[in-house]
Amino acid sequence: MRKFKRSDFFPTKSNFYTKSIVKLLEEEVILNKSINNIEVNEISSLSLFRNNSIIFLEKELENSNINSNSIHVISNIENNKNYYNDITIVKNLNTTYNLIVNKLFFHEDQNGYLDEFNYINGSFISKYCNIESNVEIGRNCVISRGVKIGKNSIIKNNVVIKNSLIGSNVVICDNSSIGTTGFGFDFEKRGSLFLNPQIGIVIIEDNVHLGSCCTVDRGKIDYTFIGKNSMIDNMVHIAHNVIMGVNTCIAAQTGISGSVEIGNNVTIGGQVGLAGHIKIGENVVIAARSGVTKNIKENSVVAGFPAIDIKEWKRNLIRQRQHGH
Amino acid sequence: MRKFKRSDFFPTKSNFYTKSIVKLLEEEVILNKSINNIEVNEISSLSLFRNNSIIFLEKELENSNINSNSIHVISNIENNKNYYNDITIVKNLNTTYNLIVNKLFFHEDQNGYLDEFNYINGSFISKYCNIESNVEIGRNCVISRGVKIGKNSIIKNNVVIKNSLIGSNVVICDNSSIGTTGFGFDFEKRGSLFLNPQIGIVIIEDNVHLGSCCTVDRGKIDYTFIGKNSMIDNMVHIAHNVIMGVNTCIAAQTGISGSVEIGNNVTIGGQVGLAGHIKIGENVVIAARSGVTKNIKENSVVAGFPAIDIKEWKRNLIRQRQHGH
Amino acid sequence: MRKFKRSDFFPTKSNFYTKSIVKLLEEEVILNKSINNIEVNEISSLSLFRNNSIIFLEKELENSNINSNSIHVISNIENNKNYYNDITIVKNLNTTYNLIVNKLFFHEDQNGYLDEFNYINGSFISKYCNIESNVEIGRNCVISRGVKIGKNSIIKNNVVIKNSLIGSNVVICDNSSIGTTGFGFDFEKRGSLFLNPQIGIVIIEDNVHLGSCCTVDRGKIDYTFIGKNSMIDNMVHIAHNVIMGVNTCIAAQTGISGSVEIGNNVTIGGQVGLAGHIKIGENVVIAARSGVTKNIKENSVVAGFPAIDIKEWKRNLIRQRQHGH
Repeated sequence: MRKFKRSDFFPTKSNFYTKSIVKLLEEEVILNKSINNIEVNEISSLSLFRNNSIIFLEKELENSNINSNSIHVISNIENNKNYYNDITIVKNLNTTYNLIVNKLFFHEDQNGYLDEFNYINGSFISKYCNIESNVEIGRNCVISRGVKIGKNSIIKNNVVIKNSLIGSNVVICDNSSIGTTGFGFDFEKRGSLFLNPQIGIVIIEDNVHLGSCCTVDRGKIDYTFIGKNSMIDNMVHIAHNVIMGVNTCIAAQTGISGSVEIGNNVTIGGQVGLAGHIKIGENVVIAARSGVTKNIKENSVVAGFPAIDIKEWKRNLIRQRQHGH
Repeated sequence: MRKFKRSDFFPTKSNFYTKSIVKLLEEEVILNKSINNIEVNEISSLSLFRNNSIIFLEKELENSNINSNSIHVISNIENNKNYYNDITIVKNLNTTYNLIVNKLFFHEDQNGYLDEFNYINGSFISKYCNIESNVEIGRNCVISRGVKIGKNSIIKNNVVIKNSLIGSNVVICDNSSIGTTGFGFDFEKRGSLFLNPQIGIVIIEDNVHLGSCCTVDRGKIDYTFIGKNSMIDNMVHIAHNVIMGVNTCIAAQTGISGSVEIGNNVTIGGQVGLAGHIKIGENVVIAARSGVTKNIKENSVVAGFPAIDIKEWKRNLIRQRQHGH
Repeated sequence: MRKFKRSDFFPTKSNFYTKSIVKLLEEEVILNKSINNIEVNEISSLSLFRNNSIIFLEKELENSNINSNSIHVISNIENNKNYYNDITIVKNLNTTYNLIVNKLFFHEDQNGYLDEFNYINGSFISKYCNIESNVEIGRNCVISRGVKIGKNSIIKNNVVIKNSLIGSNVVICDNSSIGTTGFGFDFEKRGSLFLNPQIGIVIIEDNVHLGSCCTVDRGKIDYTFIGKNSMIDNMVHIAHNVIMGVNTCIAAQTGISGSVEIGNNVTIGGQVGLAGHIKIGENVVIAARSGVTKNIKENSVVAGFPAIDIKEWKRNLIRQRQHGH
């Protein structure tokens, strides 16, 4: 995992000490065990530990590498209390996540998020972003705080880029939205007031070409990642925490749901859906209009919904269409 | 149905008296029967009667509650003449609708619709809209005449909102278009010149979260409705006259066609299509990539296209994929 | 094919003589045969020959009408050398195309494309476009160089129009992008640096109504074409070189991939995909959620994926769902 400085994008609102965590979480707390009194100003994920942070665990996890001297665990799984010295067991992990993240950070889905813009050549460019001098930006764009854009990149018109690190020679076409809010919330408690704050970013590597009217949601805690040389057509939706390797090719109107992992050199047709926390191996080809719901191993060619080997899919199709079967 | 003042959004162009209706509709008229000479300045629907209005009936309808003293019926069904005192039978209901609505109202799909804007903080805000003072609006937005937005709502960047009543704590993400023109026209007479003017609105209740690059078309005569606490992901299309209850959850790239009714607490996966004038009961779950073409009764879980009970869908799938069948 | 002046949209960067082509293409050249020394400033397609041009041939083609005195052929098929006096055989046609087109023209996917805008009424209007005086344009639009828009047309808000000829009475709704970059590149060499420059345009005829959040990619060399009176709903994607006849009707979220040809009076439901270099005959009806991968002959009604006659599709469906089959 690549480190990034969260406060470049999400300014710190206030920090707190873990000795105050019971008071902070109130009736959510079932049990609290603290050896260290940690000054918390960050959130960790299982992929990327950060000092002075909280990590949220939604499964039982004995053999983690969590450094308990600077990370406090919060979990809704009571058994986790046996593995950690610094842990709070809570009733609802979503509610707790929201309480803590909304205390620590400013973000755009809550009133009070601030940015300041210069109006340059018809677009709003944050005073706190870092754009190489020969980047070309069209009209009616918004480039928000913390964003970096590498040399020779071209941002067309009416593009919104927030919470993103963009490489060199990247082209982003008209009306696309990068770094938007991921779709994360508690199914039992719906509505904007219960949205899980999304405090991750988007990383787009060099030479990526992204079409028009695309949406790339930022990571929840870490990032959404588009590897080098990827070619992405119009109206493609890439959800939070998706990781895609180099040379990914995606045709129009495909949607990739949260946390899907795509290997290098994968080719995906138009109007495909990928859902579930699945992994797509290297060199896989996914035919147009497929619905992929399971891991696909490297070098496969799949089709259909649920997607299976394309030869089997074609055989099934012929059988289904022979009269009498 | 909730009443709204149409002229807040669609200024009145001119009214007329029903005694002049034969002259106005010319060769469209088959038969005219008038007891009252009504001053017409409004359009009614079967769901919402308005005084001094025309109502268009496309089916035979004996037992309606139409108050015939202030509503004049126009229908292409000759039998309807037996049930109403104030009625005109016409050849083509679409043509007649267009003639009358284009006479009564200014709307944005015809030259001459006017609005006046202030340019505030990078966005165009109509002088005739009503936005609570602590609403946050990003850059490059357009908020048109008649729009109301409740307190604490957040409108991100490059968002267009027209003909809409938006509640409190609503979040609308980048590049979305709310209150756009519904897809209504005569199949036999295509082209922008024959578009049925859409003179309804969009109502979005409190705490709704709407993603990026979504489109919500306004109602044809009444409204498109998104109930409280609904969570809507990116690239979702909601057509004219759709009514959805509280706590609706819709994943990315789903499309809901005109006049679909969705009950409370419904969960809809990504890339789903709902079409036809159908009703989805409370607590229904619709799996990703389903195509729903019939009513779904409450508490069902459905999948596939055409969508059926998810258990049956899975059994069918297994059968189809067993060799030899 | 209709002629258009490419330099209105893509200014000429520099021209060259075919005697220098071996030097220009370097190691790409396998064989060069030149009778004429042509001054090249244009690109031809098989549909539209232009004087002083290069034409790229990716198949063996004996009986073409290529006028060899002003057109130089470049092909990766060695046999083509037998049919033409002015021809260069190359290793990789994509690489060669990119080299030549990037030498001849400025385009928006490479640094250095220039346009100059007036800011009129909240939108950026190129100094080099031609818009009839009574056209209505909303806020936050970008209308780029070369664009023409006919009388009475209405362009709503946040619309981007580039490289397009738009007729009269055309309505284009909010957040749509017209004339965007087509998805053309070498599958073996991915990334923005290897994008095939798209130097064609979009032609939209009179009375077309195009919904919100649509994307219409410009042609690669010639054009993408939307015939008179076509009605297109929201979030429809139309790829490069698509040709659609008059009175096409397309419901929301449908995608049409590159070079599909659609006859007159075709009706296409929502969430349909059309892919492959296929032809759809006149008066065809394609049911919602169909995936069309083969030519469809005129007057057909099709459904399913791959799309077949709708009656057969329904019969298959019933059979599949009868227990025991």
